[in-house]
Amino acid sequence: MPPSPTRQLCEFLAEFRLSDVPTPVVERTKDLFLDWIASAIAGKDAPAITKLQSFASAMGPAEGRAEVLVDRRRTSPWFAALVNGAASHVVEQDDVHNGSVLHPGAVVFPAVLAAAQQEGHDGAALLTAAIAGYEAGIRIGEYMGRSHYRVFHTTGTVGTLAAAAGVAKLYGLDADGFNQAFGSAGTQAAGLWEFLRDAADSKQLHTAKAAANGLMAAWLAREGFTGARRILEGDQGMAAGMSSDADPARLTDGLGSRWATAETSFKFFASCRHTHPAADALKALMQREELAPQRIARVVAHVHQGAIDVLGPVVNPKTIHQAKFSMGTVLGLVAWHGHAGLLEFETHALGDPRVAAFRERVTMVRDDEVDTAYPRQWIGRVTVETDDGRTLHGRVDVPKGDPGNTLSRDELEAKAGQLAAFRQGADETEIRRIIARVWALEQADSVADWLPPAARSEQNRQQR
Amino acid sequence: MPPSPTRQLCEFLAEFRLSDVPTPVVERTKDLFLDWIASAIAGKDAPAITKLQSFASAMGPAEGRAEVLVDRRRTSPWFAALVNGAASHVVEQDDVHNGSVLHPGAVVFPAVLAAAQQEGHDGAALLTAAIAGYEAGIRIGEYMGRSHYRVFHTTGTVGTLAAAAGVAKLYGLDADGFNQAFGSAGTQAAGLWEFLRDAADSKQLHTAKAAANGLMAAWLAREGFTGARRILEGDQGMAAGMSSDADPARLTDGLGSRWATAETSFKFFASCRHTHPAADALKALMQREELAPQRIARVVAHVHQGAIDVLGPVVNPKTIHQAKFSMGTVLGLVAWHGHAGLLEFETHALGDPRVAAFRERVTMVRDDEVDTAYPRQWIGRVTVETDDGRTLHGRVDVPKGDPGNTLSRDELEAKAGQLAAFRQGADETEIRRIIARVWALEQADSVADWLPPAARSEQNRQQR
Repeated sequence: MPPSPTRQLCEFLAEFRLSDVPTPVVERTKDLFLDWIASAIAGKDAPAITKLQSFASAMGPAEGRAEVLVDRRRTSPWFAALVNGAASHVVEQDDVHNGSVLHPGAVVFPAVLAAAQQEGHDGAALLTAAIAGYEAGIRIGEYMGRSHYRVFHTTGTVGTLAAAAGVAKLYGLDADGFNQAFGSAGTQAAGLWEFLRDAADSKQLHTAKAAANGLMAAWLAREGFTGARRILEGDQGMAAGMSSDADPARLTDGLGSRWATAETSFKFFASCRHTHPAADALKALMQREELAPQRIARVVAHVHQGAIDVLGPVVNPKTIHQAKFSMGTVLGLVAWHGHAGLLEFETHALGDPRVAAFRERVTMVRDDEVDTAYPRQWIGRVTVETDDGRTLHGRVDVPKGDPGNTLSRDELEAKAGQLAAFRQGADETEIRRIIARVWALEQADSVADWLPPAARSEQNRQQR
Repeated sequence: MPPSPTRQLCEFLAEFRLSDVPTPVVERTKDLFLDWIASAIAGKDAPAITKLQSFASAMGPAEGRAEVLVDRRRTSPWFAALVNGAASHVVEQDDVHNGSVLHPGAVVFPAVLAAAQQEGHDGAALLTAAIAGYEAGIRIGEYMGRSHYRVFHTTGTVGTLAAAAGVAKLYGLDADGFNQAFGSAGTQAAGLWEFLRDAADSKQLHTAKAAANGLMAAWLAREGFTGARRILEGDQGMAAGMSSDADPARLTDGLGSRWATAETSFKFFASCRHTHPAADALKALMQREELAPQRIARVVAHVHQGAIDVLGPVVNPKTIHQAKFSMGTVLGLVAWHGHAGLLEFETHALGDPRVAAFRERVTMVRDDEVDTAYPRQWIGRVTVETDDGRTLHGRVDVPKGDPGNTLSRDELEAKAGQLAAFRQGADETEIRRIIARVWALEQADSVADWLPPAARSEQNRQQR
């Protein structure tokens, strides 16, 4: 009997080495790490994050080797993974993989960085571990399918296994160890979309817990703590409970030849990824037609069903974070301000009455072609009616940030600089030093101390 | 519009006082607490538990006010809830509520004890908080229904909300606070039955994480961290994702008049509760007929479907813990040794060839009457064929330990003594002191220090 798909995946993850990974994939992983660390720094002072920082202070040790990026404290890896996982997902600028609809960076990097800092691993080990986490998470996300994503936030559920895979690789577990880690991770996998209606803080809780629980699963597996071997495909496993279209073939798709890590997209807009294709299409249409925003009477965004599931509940956003899930707000920002970046959201998403009025003119409809191509391809299509009665069509086949239309290193550095400056999470010297370290990460002996520790008095103040 | 069922439940939980609770229910809660604390002590030295103790040492603070019962260390409440939650579920002697198929003690008490110790609450506050946790967990478990339990370990999933409710009560949260705590708890709710096939350690991980994550949810709610308000019934909430027969009427069933806490059953046998009705029926039949075990050629246990779902995967138990989920083993112990308690499992479950041979003679079949009565009533029915060709029927309508056939305080004290002695988790003086404290719990000023702290050298040894 050939090994099960889960077993094949575990064997691949346990056995591959960094030298097996094509150089462009390694380079792309460094891009992803920079994008992640800058996203985490930008989470500073967000209310959901400061509450998780308080939790870490109350429940975790006041010392350790793992770094909490937003407050520069050091603690144990579980709490560092928790807070960094939350922080990197709050400004909605972290990466996303289209086919799995997973945000791998926000769950994989917090876990592997914390574990690597704790145990003194080098940059090459960190990159190898991250690639294991991405390859596992993306394939398991694709396996769980679209039915899973309808109710469950895949980054919370599958993200737990992605983080576990990354830390298991760092720990050097064998195929059986990966299997046990997946068992303990999968039986902790959680995260529901219901919070969207209330603009609640759960999205950050999901990435926080996925990163920390995944780390816990791998840690326990190393100690010999056992889990279900068929947690993905068993009769009472993840797919049985939380999916109706699971496809085992996805678990082993192109193992060793397809490097899914490099398929990951960067976010160009600071909003939910489901808004990006239409935002790109509207922007292109307005440029092509030299159309002023006040001429737009109505916009129909032709979208995939997943966009309606996630964005549909958000009709009247009350917080900036919720506005990132409002198609009308994103299109309004693009129309009136040319971009929907961090600063546009801060200043105009709730504060500009023209954006609010634009929001009312936007509707979403499910489009067969767009929906069929999804999630492999995220096509952007909009129809605009102008105030003089014209009907215009905009279309983008590869949205900005996707591998076929990616961000250059200059663009990534500029984005990192903006993220660092957003809440003064790092000063210019600090973010330049981080950028330089990341570009040489595969040669780095240490992955400690990305930001200098807080002064003692500052730490005491934060611990109250 | 009347408040939603969730809101009504939250209002009830926030508003009731201990003086509203009938005295027999308060007394029963003390019974349940003793039964729980003794179960936790009996978890000492179990391999799954020592690994979680190591995790707590590695990731948590080395000091604190919350007590880890199995190693007598003190740490922060999150880690005490984690380890005590696991420890109290490993010998399978903790309580169970029939209608919800929930083990409330193993998730509620670890959370409320840790939080109460941290904040210096008294015995009355602990009891009130525990009752809130039981009332919430039982109703939410009933709400999620039988379809949920088919794949999900309700004690892991719903247990997270039960623990959150208990701690929310201790924190004095208002109805909105309970609602937020449920949101953060429900979006963390996890636990799959798949581990049963591998005799893996996940069952203890489920209670550990339910207790700790529930505590976290309430802690965060007190800080103002928000969650989905309709986490139970919303379009992308728990029932939408994990149930096909959710019944909102269960959430508010008899609020203020029905005290579900007092419906909770004590375990008389040290095995999965699904084995108990048949074990009672076989025992009664053998006594009635004065039947010797060697005369039994074949046993058919007539069971509800849930028993087949949970026990069916266990055909050839390889560990003592797995044997607790083997109907044939439990009936073999009862037949050959008169009881299936902790000591019988340790000595005979895997070691007695007569028990192994008996196991082969036992089959389970789904019975319409038993299945229809379940989960409200757990009827025990067995048919025995003897070696001289007779067919005998045994039946028990209320298994030992159910409210209609409960354990007396003498029996509870004896059970607690056995649990404490099982791995020398507490000596005789210590367990007597615990028993005396519990019987006067509503008058106690403090709930700290159930067991004296470990000597420093012992702590260092355990921390390695």
